[in-house]
Amino acid sequence: MSILCVGSVALDSVETPFGKAERVVGGSAVYFTAAASLFTQVRVVGVVGEDYPLEELDFLRERGADLSGIEQRPGESFFWAGRYHFDLNTRDTLETKLGVFADFEPKIPDEFRGARYVFLGNIDPALQHDVLDQVESPEVVACDTMNYWIDGSRDAFLELLGRVRILIVNDEEVRQLANEPNLLKAARWVQKRGPEIVVVKKGEHGAILFAEDSLFFVPGFPLEEVFDPTGAGDAFAGGFVGHLASTGSLAASDLRRAMVYGSVMGSFAVEQFSVKRLIDLPFADIELRLLKFREMTAFETHV
Amino acid sequence: MSILCVGSVALDSVETPFGKAERVVGGSAVYFTAAASLFTQVRVVGVVGEDYPLEELDFLRERGADLSGIEQRPGESFFWAGRYHFDLNTRDTLETKLGVFADFEPKIPDEFRGARYVFLGNIDPALQHDVLDQVESPEVVACDTMNYWIDGSRDAFLELLGRVRILIVNDEEVRQLANEPNLLKAARWVQKRGPEIVVVKKGEHGAILFAEDSLFFVPGFPLEEVFDPTGAGDAFAGGFVGHLASTGSLAASDLRRAMVYGSVMGSFAVEQFSVKRLIDLPFADIELRLLKFREMTAFETHV
Repeated sequence: MSILCVGSVALDSVETPFGKAERVVGGSAVYFTAAASLFTQVRVVGVVGEDYPLEELDFLRERGADLSGIEQRPGESFFWAGRYHFDLNTRDTLETKLGVFADFEPKIPDEFRGARYVFLGNIDPALQHDVLDQVESPEVVACDTMNYWIDGSRDAFLELLGRVRILIVNDEEVRQLANEPNLLKAARWVQKRGPEIVVVKKGEHGAILFAEDSLFFVPGFPLEEVFDPTGAGDAFAGGFVGHLASTGSLAASDLRRAMVYGSVMGSFAVEQFSVKRLIDLPFADIELRLLKFREMTAFETHV
Repeated sequence: MSILCVGSVALDSVETPFGKAERVVGGSAVYFTAAASLFTQVRVVGVVGEDYPLEELDFLRERGADLSGIEQRPGESFFWAGRYHFDLNTRDTLETKLGVFADFEPKIPDEFRGARYVFLGNIDPALQHDVLDQVESPEVVACDTMNYWIDGSRDAFLELLGRVRILIVNDEEVRQLANEPNLLKAARWVQKRGPEIVVVKKGEHGAILFAEDSLFFVPGFPLEEVFDPTGAGDAFAGGFVGHLASTGSLAASDLRRAMVYGSVMGSFAVEQFSVKRLIDLPFADIELRLLKFREMTAFETHV
């Protein structure tokens, strides 16, 4: 099944200890789609300014993604500039310019309104509500957010949780949301408010799936060179939701495999600046890395 | 096979958000032995003062541990006091008194010198060398250390690496040792200096085994209540080396299972103050938790 994805379509300027990239394509919807479109069709809704190099998203179109919901408006695109520290685990935001994104009002094209799978990227919870109001009867709604909204739009976000089946956030965010340092308790807190599935991303430490009463861990893939961590979380979400939508199943075995595909896509995303590594990525390479995750985690319980 | 363990035998005063424990038994050798003695015989070498409640280690004797190498000397025992923060990931040291440990010169009793498995707890690398000088022909030497020695006794510790087959440290320590933020590269750096096996502990995030060209990840066990993190790393080492010594094998399958037993023992250790949770712990409970680790990490690569 196809996925409706609503999120930011941005330009990023990124500095890491290994180099610099200026005004490259980024944003949650772009990273998500670059990953998810390797699994199934993605229909994107977003907004960009006149300065956006839309042709750089042609690789998504060639893969079957429908970008007709990306509106181009007078003004500048959402721009983010950041610098990563030596160990790549921390970064400073150097500049954020919302541009046309400041007035973003997601308009879901008629032909997208029947979407069964919806991914709500990290945007204002009020807009996330708007999106869901325009979708007829979504079966699986997955959603991301960030500390800024958890703090500043808490009520709207808590209400949103009641409309969401899968929450995908990082460990810091779920702790803040539940006001609870223990991850297990924090995830259970969220589950009581709507989402039956909570995915907690932990960066290089991997991710945890909380589903009903079961837990599943996937490690981060150990890379010799992490080039640029930007977008790893969105690429993870793309692999995760992409696999689920491609199978049309939320069975435990699919949720687990989706977690590994998520970690696989996150691991590819960080190997180059922007979405470069996801452009010409054969599915065989994805499967190969999935097998490596199995090698890294399998053990026998008895001799 | 039995294990010779040399390390600190201490008294700890610990404050956590959940309570306080005053002058309870602790130290690397005690936590290690409390875990490892559930797998095989452990022979302990250490030093305590006149104030040490040796009878509180009777549970180790009852399990077959040989504590005759713990010397009791005039003076006070090694004492550590610390306070954990709300999220239990950080702690402040309130007090450290070395006491008789300041003059500790490990004397390996004659009947221990034939040891095939040796665990060197976190003590001065010069003393770790001394221990190995007194052991006839150890087959497997596993070793822990800390930032203090990596910084202050770097040359002695680097020389020690040449005599060690298994280094067990945390992520911060291996990064500092190799002066390399990338864990994979840091572990490879260590492997070139002696230890064919590097185990990197990551606290709540689990642990990674680097062995020859293979990698293995084990997550931390998700607990609703972490009561006291003190000694989790030593209990991990006890489960890890304990399983290896009990099988007499360093085969890949045993190394993997040893990692899981390590994480299992670390997870039990933190459920109560001091070594309390490890005193009456049926092996069936350990096996049950091993199975839970399998449930939390297994996935199918194909439908």
